[in-house]
Parts: sequence; C-alpha cells; structure tokens
Amino acid sequence: MATQNKAADATPETLHRIFTVPEAPDSTLSQIEQAISQNLNRFLQNHITATERSLADIERDFSDPAIPEDPTFVSDHTQFLLDKLVAQSVHTASPRFIGHMTSALPYFLMPLSKIMIGLNQNTVKIETSKAFTPLERQVLGMLHNLIYQQDDAFYQSWMHSANHSLGAFCSGGTVANITALWVARNNVLKPDGEFPGINKAGLFGAMRHYGYRDLAILVSERGHYSLGKAADVLGIGRDQLISVPADSQNRICIDALEETIATLNRDNIKPIAIVGVAGTTETGSIDPLNALADIAEREGIHFHVDAAWGGATLMSNNQRHKLAGIERADSVTIDAHKQLYVPMGAGMVLFKDPSLVASIEHHAEYILRKGAKDLGSHTLEGSRSGMAMLVFACMNIISRRGYELLIDQSIDKAATFADMITTDPDFELISEPELCLLTYRFVPAKVQTALAVASEEQIELMHDLLNDLTKFIQKRQRESGKTFVSRTRLTPEQWQRRTTTVFRVVLANPLTTADILQEVLAEQGEIAKESEFAYPRLMTLADSILKA
Amino acid sequence: MATQNKAADATPETLHRIFTVPEAPDSTLSQIEQAISQNLNRFLQNHITATERSLADIERDFSDPAIPEDPTFVSDHTQFLLDKLVAQSVHTASPRFIGHMTSALPYFLMPLSKIMIGLNQNTVKIETSKAFTPLERQVLGMLHNLIYQQDDAFYQSWMHSANHSLGAFCSGGTVANITALWVARNNVLKPDGEFPGINKAGLFGAMRHYGYRDLAILVSERGHYSLGKAADVLGIGRDQLISVPADSQNRICIDALEETIATLNRDNIKPIAIVGVAGTTETGSIDPLNALADIAEREGIHFHVDAAWGGATLMSNNQRHKLAGIERADSVTIDAHKQLYVPMGAGMVLFKDPSLVASIEHHAEYILRKGAKDLGSHTLEGSRSGMAMLVFACMNIISRRGYELLIDQSIDKAATFADMITTDPDFELISEPELCLLTYRFVPAKVQTALAVASEEQIELMHDLLNDLTKFIQKRQRESGKTFVSRTRLTPEQWQRRTTTVFRVVLANPLTTADILQEVLAEQGEIAKESEFAYPRLMTLADSILKA
Repeated sequence: MATQNKAADATPETLHRIFTVPEAPDSTLSQIEQAISQNLNRFLQNHITATERSLADIERDFSDPAIPEDPTFVSDHTQFLLDKLVAQSVHTASPRFIGHMTSALPYFLMPLSKIMIGLNQNTVKIETSKAFTPLERQVLGMLHNLIYQQDDAFYQSWMHSANHSLGAFCSGGTVANITALWVARNNVLKPDGEFPGINKAGLFGAMRHYGYRDLAILVSERGHYSLGKAADVLGIGRDQLISVPADSQNRICIDALEETIATLNRDNIKPIAIVGVAGTTETGSIDPLNALADIAEREGIHFHVDAAWGGATLMSNNQRHKLAGIERADSVTIDAHKQLYVPMGAGMVLFKDPSLVASIEHHAEYILRKGAKDLGSHTLEGSRSGMAMLVFACMNIISRRGYELLIDQSIDKAATFADMITTDPDFELISEPELCLLTYRFVPAKVQTALAVASEEQIELMHDLLNDLTKFIQKRQRESGKTFVSRTRLTPEQWQRRTTTVFRVVLANPLTTADILQEVLAEQGEIAKESEFAYPRLMTLADSILKA
Repeated sequence: MATQNKAADATPETLHRIFTVPEAPDSTLSQIEQAISQNLNRFLQNHITATERSLADIERDFSDPAIPEDPTFVSDHTQFLLDKLVAQSVHTASPRFIGHMTSALPYFLMPLSKIMIGLNQNTVKIETSKAFTPLERQVLGMLHNLIYQQDDAFYQSWMHSANHSLGAFCSGGTVANITALWVARNNVLKPDGEFPGINKAGLFGAMRHYGYRDLAILVSERGHYSLGKAADVLGIGRDQLISVPADSQNRICIDALEETIATLNRDNIKPIAIVGVAGTTETGSIDPLNALADIAEREGIHFHVDAAWGGATLMSNNQRHKLAGIERADSVTIDAHKQLYVPMGAGMVLFKDPSLVASIEHHAEYILRKGAKDLGSHTLEGSRSGMAMLVFACMNIISRRGYELLIDQSIDKAATFADMITTDPDFELISEPELCLLTYRFVPAKVQTALAVASEEQIELMHDLLNDLTKFIQKRQRESGKTFVSRTRLTPEQWQRRTTTVFRVVLANPLTTADILQEVLAEQGEIAKESEFAYPRLMTLADSILKA
C-alpha cells in the first residue's frame, strides 16, 4: 500500500496537510506523475481501455449527486480516476486519432503547465499576474505580427498601451468570435450625438436611433456553429446570420455574397460583419479573403476572419499565400490549442486597429481602473489563467521554422491521404484538402460503377444507403478503439447538393504515418462488410443496375 | 550544463523529438518540476523576487513582436521564464497575500492537473471527452445538489439527459453570469405564436413583437462588474443594468428595489432578471435572498444569484443559513477557482429547472447533433478542457466536511481580524465581515478624535487626505512585496456616503495566521509614516482641530 494523504478527519491538522505536504514519492499519484513524465503515450496506452464501454454504462459511474460527507485518501481517489475516468477517456494524442482537431502535445508543455498551475496567476488584473500581463500582451503582439506584419514602431506604440489592445486572449475560438462580433456590433451602433452608443443604450435603443430595419452577419454556409451562438448572444438573432452558399471547393460564392448584400442594402438591413473562414471546420477550406476584403472595404463593413483552425498556416512561408488577404481583416480569430499544439483552452482574437476595443472597454472600482494596464478591461471573460505562457514557450522553443515544418508536413500528409483515397477503387474523395483536412466516404467499386449509369431515383436510393453505411462505419470504428475519424454531413456539388454523410479527417498529429492512414482505410473496408443492412443492399442494387 | 531538448534545427527528426522524448531528468525543466512537487512554497519563495520591478521595466523583457525564426533549447527558455517571468509573478498562494480571491491550492491538484493536460480532452463533445462528459455532468449535479437539494429521482432523471442540463461549466464567473442572463433574456423573449423567439429573430424583432419599451437587469450597487459586460454583450445596455442602492451592510435595499420595479412596470420596461449577490466582490456581503425570491416570484422575473464567491459557503452547515433563499434562485453562479480551491479557470452556472437551457440550445452537423449528450449544446463556450476533473477530485478528497472546516476557519479568521482592527486605535473598520472579506483603513487615533469634533468642511478635507493615504499605503505595501492587501472605493453610510478608499482583505488562504494579520497592520502603520504629504497634513490638521 502506497503512502497516502488524507484531507481531513474533521481536524484542521489533517486538512492543513493537503496544502503543505506533497504526495509521497511512492504514492499512486506520484507514480502516475512519473509515468506521464517518462512516457505519456505509454501511460495513455496502458490506461485507456481499447474497447468502448457504452455511455450509459459509464454514466452509472458518474451518477451520484451527493458531495461525499467524508474525505477520501488521495491515492484511493486517484485509483478511481484511473479505473473509471482515464480508462474511458479518449486518446486524443494518438497518431491513430485523426478525426478531430485535438492532437499530440510537445513534451515540454507538461512540466511548464505545472509551473503555470503552481503559480496560479489570474491575468484579469496586474495585481494577480504582474509579469504575466506584459507576457500576454507580447504573445498577442506576436500573433498580431504573424497576421498583420506591422512595423516595430507600431508594436512599440500599442503593445503595452493601457487604452489599446492588439487582441484578447480567450478560452477558445468561440469566445474569440463572439468578442470580435461584439466589437463590430458596438462600432456599427456607436455613440452619435446625444446617443450614447449601444453598449450603454442597448440594441433596441440603438436600432431606433440609427433607423435600420435589422442587422445581419454574413458568412458562408461552411461557417462555424459558434457564429450562430454569437448572433444569438449578441441579440442579432440566428436568422440574421445569413448563410451564403459555398462553391464546389467549399469557399464562399462571391456572386451570391454580392447579391445578398445588395438585397440587405435595399431592405435597410445593416451587416455588422462579413466573416471569412480560413480553414472551415469540416473541410479546411479557405474563403477568397482578398475578394471579401474588397467588398468589406467598399461597403464599409467590419471584416472578420475566423482562422481558429487555419491561422497557424501563416507560420509557413510555403503556405502563407493561401491566406492572402487575411492582413486586411479588421479582426482575426486564431486558436493556439489547435495547430499551435498548446493544451485545450487557448484562443485569441486579434484586432488590426488596437483602438477598436474601446467600444467594449469596461472598468471597476477595485481593479481595471481607468488608465491601468489590466488585461481584463478589454476581454469578455474575467478571471483567466496564465495560458499565454504556454503559447509563448511554444513560439520560442518550436519557433517559426519549426511550425513551418509541422504545417507543411500536415498538408503533405493530407495530399498523400487524398491520393490513397483516390487510388483506392472502394473509396471516394468528397472534399480535396486545401490544408490538412479532407472528407471522403466508402463506396465499393461496383457501386461507383453502378452510380455512373443509374437513374436519378436509383442514385437517390444508393445515396441514402451510403449515408447509412458511412454512419455505421464511423460509429463501429470509434467503438473498436483502434483508429478514429469523425463524420459530418455536406452537400457536395458533384452530388447535386444531396446531403452526404462523409468521414472527416484532420491530419495535424505529427506522429501520424502513411502506414496508419492505410490501416484506417483497411479497417473501414472491413467494417463496411459487417453492416447487415446497407452494405448488402448496396451490392444487390449495384448488381441489378449493372445487369440491366 | 543540463541535458537539453531542442525543437528543430529545421529537420523533421529534431522536431519529432519534442513530441516523443521527455525532458531528461537532469534538465532545468525537470529539476523545476521536481522542486515544485517537493515544495511549491519554497520554489515560489526562492524564485519570486521580493521587491517589485516597475511595470515599464518588466515590459521591456516582453516587447518583441517577432516570432523567433529559430528554435531555442527547452532549458534555455525555461531559464528565461524563471528569470523574467516567474521572478516577476505574484505569489498568490502566499499566506501574506490576502488582497484578492486567488489563494493556495491543495498539493494533489498539481499532479492531477498534469493528468488533465496529458489527456488533453475537449469536453465540447463526447468524441473528444467520453467519460469526461458524464463526469462533468456529475460535478454539475453535485453543485446543483449543494444549492437546490433535490431528491435522487430528480438527479436520476436529469443529470445525464441529452436535452437538459443542470448547469454549464465555464471558464469563470463572468461567462457563468452571461450564460445565466442569456438564458433569462431568451426565456422572457421566447417563441410566441408566429414569433420564433429572440434567439432566431434577434432582440430588435423580439422587442417589437412583445411591445416592451425596454429591458432591464436589477442588481445592487455592489454587484460585480461582469454584469455590466453581460448587459452590453446581450444587447440590453449598461444603462439598463439598474443599480439599486445598498444599505449600511452593503446589502440591496428592498424598498429601493420595490420602488424601482414599480417605476419600470409603469414605464413598460421589462426586467429580465433580478440578480442577488451572495458574497459581494468588495465586501463579501450577502443580499437578503429570500426577500428577493419573494419579489421575483410575485413579479414573474428570473431570479439569478451571483454566488461566484459565496456559493462555497453552502458547504458549511454552520454557515449555510447565511445564504437562505438561494435554493429559490432560477440560476446560480459559483466559481470553483475561488473558495473550492481549484486552479484558475473553473466557473459554473447552475439552473434550478434543467429544461431552462432549451432557450440557448444549439447544434452542428459534425458534433452536438440533436439528441446527443455533448456538453457543447448548452454552453456559451465551445472547446473546453477537462477542468471538471479537478473539481471532482476536490469534492471527493476534501469532502463536504473538509470544506466546512475551511469555510468556518476563513470566517473565524475574518472575525478575528475585524477585532484586531477595531481594537487598534489607529485603524477603522469600514465593512464588517459577513463571510471572510472585510474593508478597513488606517486612521491615526488622533485623527479619529479630531474627526469626531470636526466641521463638515474639515471632515471633507481629512477624508480626502485619508483616501490619498490609503492609496499610498496600499501601493507601497504591494511594492515592498512582504504582504499584500487590495484597495477599492466604497460609499459607507457612516461617512454620509462619501467616496472612501479602503483596504480590502480576503481571508481564504488556510495558511494565513493571526500573526500574519498583525504583521499586515504593523507594516501599514509603518508605511503611513513614510507618506510625505497626506500623513503629516492629517496630523497637523488634527492638532489644529483638537486645539481649537
């Protein structure tokens, strides 16, 4: 039995111990810590159970709403967490987990995270963060520089200015997007003569003052769902988030956007922002940012770019051109916990003009006093941790050239995988990778041949069966726990915009190899045959079509 | 020279290392990690420099907006962080740091945090969090239970229900408050006949449909500044956050609230929420929650309680009565990173009625599908970390009785400190502690005597000088780095609501002793005499008044 620490037997002394005495080196918790430090991947492989228990089953372990009356030994609780929680968590760092945007982390981030948590700074105000405040401002400056490439004088003027902000550090891309659109909304409905501005008067008063019939946000149909949330929270309304059709490459149709704007103008509906997407969540596509910037400039509309995923691409001089025009955006969202390989919880929004945040500035008596440099004056969130330190460390230790390598490798890998899919007679590539995301589906060779000669009605039927089959494969593959891809529904032009269920793959883990990608396809081909309904039906249908 | 890891010399191999090879045991980073594990407090004391460098000086270390072209060795960068960042951070865990709400952490949280970061789950969706989803739901259930104490059948029905939510885990109290008021706003302006609801139609359309002249949020003048942000973000407007006067105990005046509501009703202005405060940020005061609940029920207004600070008080059966009525709130904010001793970044909002969140529900094609149990369907934030694990561990390891001890000790300590201040002839208690917060100021005995007989004009003058002196002492004390209290401005009734600068003290660190509190007062008395302006002027003035 390992040495154990117990919180309290209802005595102050035992309670005092948990704040002052570390876990013994031979305790369960210390041993785990060691195991993680020595080989995280082995730890995860040893402790995460390969096969999935049903969610209902897991829920039974986490169903007691009572707060325990009496303390548990640290080691006992750690053992519980290992058996019940860690065992049933997701190995997001696995090179075989290629379905979502969470991937492996550099090793040095784990000990650094411990320093961050040990320091427990609160970056909302200088009095609880001191050097973390200038550090966070520098990190925002680095990201601003990555996007906007202003000269040194610019950064010397604004980086540490109390009444300005190059951006805001957030818990994630959603808060970053909301912050950008909050700023945009408040600048459209700004103070005007006697009118004190929307921030004081509210949206209803602002609309009466400005006389618009309504507001709108414009984004392609591939825009992230957080924009709908932003439209709701900000009082603009989900119906006023205008979804502009995307083209066959999943990029916003400029013609359709122009038409939409003309209609809005005619109807006296004021767009508060055009949102360009640099790396759509589902397909990794990049909108034509320069064309969007032209329109936004001409119309005097705030231009926001959601580069939560794709922003890190700017690190690569070989890929940077794909985001041309991003430097003309009024605001940009970028997530460090995606392709900057920082742990969950590090989003950012950057503002081209550092005085833009004046429209959301706020103060309090005990902190954030006027003229003070507290970060909290220009953020949606209040108390926040020192996460910026981890981004800072990555910038320095990995460096631009290191990130360039990572980004280039990921994009190359996606191209390789796209080739594998195209070459394999039993798979169909649905969206070509522009970054390191792509979508595809399993369509047996015979079905592909049949589809080419089938009637509309037959295509419809096979399409439905393929959707069922894709869903079946994705779920079964996840449950078997060897490899993981995600799935989504698209409306590809090559299938006359039929709703099409597809596998979605994100190839950002630097440890994912071509062999693993072959494994993924092989496993999917195997699983397909286990389908008792869709697969045999598809084959029979294909046979009958080809016989006819 | 310690063994070093370098990210990339522009080769994939060196880059691969940082994802696969841990830091060597004798590296700088590993040594720090060891030092933190063995004795966090000693590590912080050794590395945080006692005396303060000026912010302008620190900023020079964090002013380069360039992302380094080439990688830095991990150990070199770690050394930089130690010298420039850690050395100039704030020792928030110090028992002498009693000015803000950030305090010491139990030891076991550091290794557990490492597990959390190593697992790098994303709780927005089950596919990247699996068991972390039921775990987070259980944590929300525990907090819900702490507040609302529903029966087992209630929790068995709703805790794991896909279309319901007992609350939302957030990055902090600000997002929790915004979420609560978002829900409240959307329920006031809900779908009605042909009208699709504010979430779809927006606030402007909703107001035209419902015909209100305006909306309002009601809270005492001691309410947290995040409510102003919420009013701004949600489109209600800061002017419509109605600040109701507080009484001499810093609690909302019920009469004034009643008058305000009568006026709003007469003017057809619809209050979306009454916010009660359970532990004001500045004074730790608790509004009369039952009286507020009565009014909210009678008027049919959403009743939200901001218990970000005070909610943990419910853990103590000895103190629970102070929050009587909180169980009648429609929603409650509580921060685990305050008095539940969890690291920064753990806020929560709880909803009495688990179907209330339907008004903010949202979906996406690739995740958060209808009927799925993904947590992201009912949160303002998107991607989030597995912080709930740390709250869960604290609940189990510390337990209710452990928290009870911590809470009781803090409140006792505040009473002790209040006694010290009252007994000391050179100090004046401004707000009595209801929880473990209090405010006071340094007023030399002679000045106190003079104030008792002074004219209005003389009082005014001395008051201004005392404000200067308090500010001087607080800043000098912070700079000298031995002890820390914060400061704020109040309008105490005993000083005819004159704006009064006060020291603000939060006594939540279990390691703070009575001796330390004596040190704080002694140091303040010493520093006062260093004031070249306010102190001598005050003494001269007092002399002349007492001679007259």
